[in-house]
Amino acid sequence: MTAPHDFELYGFWRTSATYRVRVALNLKGLAAHERVIDLDKGEQRGDAFLKINPLGAIPALIEPGHLPLTQSLAILEFLDEIHPTPPLLPSDPHGRARVRSIAAMLAADTHPLITPRVRKYLAITAGFDDAAVRAWLVHWFTTGLAAVEKRLASEPATGRFCHGDEVTIADICLLSITATMKVLKIEIAGIPTIDRIVATCEAMEAFTKADPLKQQGAPKAS
Amino acid sequence: MTAPHDFELYGFWRTSATYRVRVALNLKGLAAHERVIDLDKGEQRGDAFLKINPLGAIPALIEPGHLPLTQSLAILEFLDEIHPTPPLLPSDPHGRARVRSIAAMLAADTHPLITPRVRKYLAITAGFDDAAVRAWLVHWFTTGLAAVEKRLASEPATGRFCHGDEVTIADICLLSITATMKVLKIEIAGIPTIDRIVATCEAMEAFTKADPLKQQGAPKAS
Repeated sequence: MTAPHDFELYGFWRTSATYRVRVALNLKGLAAHERVIDLDKGEQRGDAFLKINPLGAIPALIEPGHLPLTQSLAILEFLDEIHPTPPLLPSDPHGRARVRSIAAMLAADTHPLITPRVRKYLAITAGFDDAAVRAWLVHWFTTGLAAVEKRLASEPATGRFCHGDEVTIADICLLSITATMKVLKIEIAGIPTIDRIVATCEAMEAFTKADPLKQQGAPKAS
Repeated sequence: MTAPHDFELYGFWRTSATYRVRVALNLKGLAAHERVIDLDKGEQRGDAFLKINPLGAIPALIEPGHLPLTQSLAILEFLDEIHPTPPLLPSDPHGRARVRSIAAMLAADTHPLITPRVRKYLAITAGFDDAAVRAWLVHWFTTGLAAVEKRLASEPATGRFCHGDEVTIADICLLSITATMKVLKIEIAGIPTIDRIVATCEAMEAFTKADPLKQQGAPKAS
């Protein structure tokens, strides 16, 4: 852990946000030692992890000598700035704005509504039963992906990937949502453009290696 | 509307995300013609607005000849790229990562949970009464701001503002949350660092001019 860009990544197999960082590291050809913080055991709030990241938040990307980097989109932008090849954003400001906007539709409009802390509030504080929690999840996945599908299907900048023919932060965020849907066994119909882009990404090693179900701590396939 | 950087901003007086764009335009000294899309009347889903922005999303920043720019953080990054002075992000990658991370804690971890569409789902589909909706709002504002307070109070990079002594995207996101809390008449105690930074920003014209309660369509002070 002494090379200038050698990282430790604190994360958990099934979280979307950890997945995004994993894919970006893979695309950039960067190695990170992944350390499991078991959310089911509350390890993110344990003393051992709080000494590493007082915020108790994963993913946390640690570079020796620096404060932990947190929040997946901030980490992706950071990795793209210090390791610009291959780029994760287009070179023109309008293209960058489009990619960041699609990424935000997924990572900021959609993902925060389906996180464990929200599900926990609904189940424990609000008394939702399992079916009501599932209806909530399906509602926000459907709303979020329908909006993204409408955009991708109608805007000329869409290519093999969300923006043109190169992978960007938008694709990473898209796949982080669909990978989480697989973990939760939720399927949504009527999103052909998304389905096509997801299939293209899923043929790439940078994405397959990051698959939640292949990570340390994931349940064995049944 | 023919100058290269003349904008139209479609927004609504009380939304956090419109507020963020308004503050950034003010800080950069850019003028935008603001057009009201009345969310209470469902104008964001009306034919007139869908012709301008088929996504039906506000804020939408329109530059003549370009597709609408959407998602407040993507718009802020865009404005910072095309009008770099004064900068809204620090110049070093670690500082930029910290600012983007704090911004995401507010705009992505906190704000999406308190939006009208979520409150509507809770009230109509889930049958929350007014007190339960309010408890939900207070819970997520408190959780989100407590995490940001912990960070700002403990990290040496905090200065007069969230990061050093210049306004950044992090401050814009922070004030967008506290401005929304004022609209909703929600107060939270025990966040002295945030209170101090909010007071500093509220002494600046770029923030006061963007105040939701001073915009077209806002209710008159009672």
